[in-house]
Amino acid sequence: MEGKVKLQEVLPADIEKRSFEIISREMGDVKLDPLEEPIVKRVIHTSADFDYLENLVFSPGAVETAMEAILQGVTIVTDTNMAWSGINKRALERFGGKACCFMADEDVREAAGKDGTTRAAASMKKAASLPGPLIFAIGNAPTALVTLYELIQEGRLCPALIIGVPVGFVNVVESKELILKTDVPYIVARGRKGGSNIAAAICNALLYQCGGRD
Amino acid sequence: MEGKVKLQEVLPADIEKRSFEIISREMGDVKLDPLEEPIVKRVIHTSADFDYLENLVFSPGAVETAMEAILQGVTIVTDTNMAWSGINKRALERFGGKACCFMADEDVREAAGKDGTTRAAASMKKAASLPGPLIFAIGNAPTALVTLYELIQEGRLCPALIIGVPVGFVNVVESKELILKTDVPYIVARGRKGGSNIAAAICNALLYQCGGRD
Repeated sequence: MEGKVKLQEVLPADIEKRSFEIISREMGDVKLDPLEEPIVKRVIHTSADFDYLENLVFSPGAVETAMEAILQGVTIVTDTNMAWSGINKRALERFGGKACCFMADEDVREAAGKDGTTRAAASMKKAASLPGPLIFAIGNAPTALVTLYELIQEGRLCPALIIGVPVGFVNVVESKELILKTDVPYIVARGRKGGSNIAAAICNALLYQCGGRD
Repeated sequence: MEGKVKLQEVLPADIEKRSFEIISREMGDVKLDPLEEPIVKRVIHTSADFDYLENLVFSPGAVETAMEAILQGVTIVTDTNMAWSGINKRALERFGGKACCFMADEDVREAAGKDGTTRAAASMKKAASLPGPLIFAIGNAPTALVTLYELIQEGRLCPALIIGVPVGFVNVVESKELILKTDVPYIVARGRKGGSNIAAAICNALLYQCGGRD
């Protein structure tokens, strides 16, 4: 019935393994830091886009710091419900962690209106008062990254990790460059590319590296 | 405080407009079908990836058929909660439509176990019995597309549109090619690229084209 289209016979459980083998093969001789490599590969797995081999930059020790935070029971803050949806909450809860997104909250809408800013910016301010450790997973809003930058500069926020991977054409590149200037641990996709799916994939890669899926 | 990083001063409401202007400019002389163009541009807006100029293929009249379905009150079925999250439900509800994802349903888990198939495949079978019109927005699972293909061949499903944009390395290309062989309306991202974000972006582009965001 399927004519000339030939599907590979792969058990569902083996598809991810096979995918990572293909990614490794196509990466060729590229040598990555052993802690960073699974994250880069999962992002490529999620996007089928090898540009991330070049685009993804890690501050020194970012992965270790993030893994420690996860093992302590981290709160992951996202700037979209899509990123929130994509995070493996079962893996996160194994370590006593949780994920939250304040974008749709009424008080965030009100604060944004009052301050003449975006809901993304207001939701970051709200999140900054949560008890740590905190990981920020930003896949959409440059204004979220700009607000995080300002909070850090003002000494009001000390995140365990900033995942800075908004996608787009206006202030996206610039907002990421701001994060690269900070001293906080970061994983940033330089350039225009990124997205909520990329933000979630990086969170999941970190969780799996901690043993969240064993 | 921001050193050499210079942010553009753009009102939040204007960011999308400015982004689409940049996309149009960088597309250059490419001529697209006027009904398909806003969809291609929104996908590029969501991914910052101009490969979709080449990858996205539309069956003749697919956009019109999908828009008619939306105006009648469509049910959009997704294969991930991420895609479901990304769909603008307010726009959809304006036309009496709704979005659903059965992946986490207990009966789907059981059916997949019993049939030795994936939850994605089982969730498509469950969705096939919904009252129409139906749009399937598949951004993750090749097995969802294969199941839709089989249901169509067996005459058990007549969707208003299949959005076939799974991402990945195993059976992804092949499952999309299957959909290209059908007579049903489709929007497919040929090749490896796609994702839940792309599936949601295509749904939203269709909704906005119907006036869902005026």
